[in-house]
Amino acid sequence: MTCDFLSLALPGVQKLSPYVPGKPVEELAREFGLRAEDIVKLASNENPLGPSPLALEALKSAFAELTRYPDGNGFLLKQALAERLGVSTSMITLGNGSNDILELITRAFVSPQHEVVFSEHAFAVYPIVTQAVGARPVVVPARDWGHDLDAMAAAITPATRLVFIANPNNPTGTWIERPALERFLAKVPENVIVVLDEAYTEYVETGDVPNGLDYLTQYPNLLVSRTFSKAYGLAALRVGYGICQPAIADAMNRVRQPFNVNSLAQAAALATLEDEAYLAESRRINREGMAQLEAGFTSLGLSWIFSRGNFVAVDLGREAAPVFQGLLRQGVIVRPVANYGMPNHLRVSIGLPEENQRFLEVLGQVLADAAGAGE
Amino acid sequence: MTCDFLSLALPGVQKLSPYVPGKPVEELAREFGLRAEDIVKLASNENPLGPSPLALEALKSAFAELTRYPDGNGFLLKQALAERLGVSTSMITLGNGSNDILELITRAFVSPQHEVVFSEHAFAVYPIVTQAVGARPVVVPARDWGHDLDAMAAAITPATRLVFIANPNNPTGTWIERPALERFLAKVPENVIVVLDEAYTEYVETGDVPNGLDYLTQYPNLLVSRTFSKAYGLAALRVGYGICQPAIADAMNRVRQPFNVNSLAQAAALATLEDEAYLAESRRINREGMAQLEAGFTSLGLSWIFSRGNFVAVDLGREAAPVFQGLLRQGVIVRPVANYGMPNHLRVSIGLPEENQRFLEVLGQVLADAAGAGE
Repeated sequence: MTCDFLSLALPGVQKLSPYVPGKPVEELAREFGLRAEDIVKLASNENPLGPSPLALEALKSAFAELTRYPDGNGFLLKQALAERLGVSTSMITLGNGSNDILELITRAFVSPQHEVVFSEHAFAVYPIVTQAVGARPVVVPARDWGHDLDAMAAAITPATRLVFIANPNNPTGTWIERPALERFLAKVPENVIVVLDEAYTEYVETGDVPNGLDYLTQYPNLLVSRTFSKAYGLAALRVGYGICQPAIADAMNRVRQPFNVNSLAQAAALATLEDEAYLAESRRINREGMAQLEAGFTSLGLSWIFSRGNFVAVDLGREAAPVFQGLLRQGVIVRPVANYGMPNHLRVSIGLPEENQRFLEVLGQVLADAAGAGE
Repeated sequence: MTCDFLSLALPGVQKLSPYVPGKPVEELAREFGLRAEDIVKLASNENPLGPSPLALEALKSAFAELTRYPDGNGFLLKQALAERLGVSTSMITLGNGSNDILELITRAFVSPQHEVVFSEHAFAVYPIVTQAVGARPVVVPARDWGHDLDAMAAAITPATRLVFIANPNNPTGTWIERPALERFLAKVPENVIVVLDEAYTEYVETGDVPNGLDYLTQYPNLLVSRTFSKAYGLAALRVGYGICQPAIADAMNRVRQPFNVNSLAQAAALATLEDEAYLAESRRINREGMAQLEAGFTSLGLSWIFSRGNFVAVDLGREAAPVFQGLLRQGVIVRPVANYGMPNHLRVSIGLPEENQRFLEVLGQVLADAAGAGE
């Protein structure tokens, strides 16, 4: 007789559904008998440019040291980030992607008796990390698909230990403007930690979206989280970082795995950080691709949620799942977001111009076929 | 006024002292004004061979996909491991180093009301992961520097959820033989998970040391943990894996970060796994280096703990800290183990023949100087 091991797991863990990643290209190719090179993947908010050439050079230079453990303190990368961001290295925590940062802050500070506040339609990792430590998730209804910060402030109770805010938010692309954030931060008690997830901040080009770093001095309970996976094009390598007061960073570093960010990841991130041209080109491609998709949606008579990220959620005005499947059959992968409470939307990452074009064409066909079939 | 954020952290986290990594070469060079290329680092049980050439080829091939997220399921690597180990892929959990595996099993199953049993002088990560979840560490006194499995079995109470066993153990190099392990496993209640940490198992060349995989069917509460950081020479890349029954793996995968092992790490591990010649050469260098160090210690009149790992703990018969400092000043880095309750020992990783030779020469000088100074 074998015991039921899952029943021995922590209660929160037993109820946990793991994060569902976008479908890998190879898997789709196998499943539908397509050629991998014919597939367009706009499913994971990845940078369509390919990596920075400086990153590739840095990786090759790091090959000689593959048998050595990484620098567990990330000395060079933290120093470069500190200089660029105008903060001290003691305020920086490196993560194995910003997912790691979201997890570290939760594991260091949140117990089963605590509540964690976040918004409806917000990033899927917030409920996962909350549940993994057995805390109570408090999901605040969204307003116009975005965070309702007044309602989120009102949802804070003496049991609240953490609030997650995504700016811009994934998968909606919605953003919070400066006055709303300031009003919110002023209302949060100092013993409640606010995690401002700025994974997409490098794509924000207008002045009305605040930079979280501006508030670190005034609000010592603030943690700003960022990543190299998006505009810096290093999703494969898993490098994120948190910026906060040293006392919070100290607690996060105590639960951090000593070698959480690997050597090649540190080397590539450091090199890409110096590649200003790469970042500028990433932004340009994104700006133009967003305009291309918006024009395409307009032609197709579709509406969408205005986005400041490198993706856009398009409203199909009908159940999106069959359309997602129709796109897949023609080798176009986007992201269904029914699990985010958005069954009529598909989230599309901004690709290269030809990828965006291909997606729009196939989308038009799939929608026309569905209409013709009287679906 | 600023609140004391550390006092908000979980009680276990507040008391946590993070893992102390070996001193990086660059840091020593800075500190003592040495040239990095003159420094011999035998401090972190790293493979002195340099990486497998197959790993380097695989890394370059993976460069094109750096902007893409890793395969969160590690399909190819798990498949290759499953084939080689004769288990199903559902029994494998990939980790960001085996440190991640040790943490995942603890976070999935251990709460503050639980006890975790491990041995005195055992790997430093066991108490760290125990304390991070707020559980009670139960440290069982060692016997002849090794695990006293009878005492460990006797230390199991109804509150025990996990037992950590290292075979061979780091930093002592001691090992457990087949009958002792079998007697132990038979005594452990099925609702207590036994983690058998085999990070150094590839260096074990004699038949008396058991292979943990042989016991997975009979003992469904067993998790065997292994790594690519040692004999496979990929410490920089952080790849470890656990093998256990699917029900336990399922719980671990629920708390696992979706992209915990990065793409380059997966590619290099897969390639190295196929490089039989590399593994054989790693073992040969280690066997010969161990003999070289043992002969050197004998010449110096020193005793040591017999080791089946890629390192050996030498007994200086005096406080080791000043000798460690003396070695450092001459550019030789080894590992002090006073924090493991071994103040008279230094742990030395097996290097290349010339590195071992240099270490032995410098050690002889430092000991002679200390004796001459009447220390």
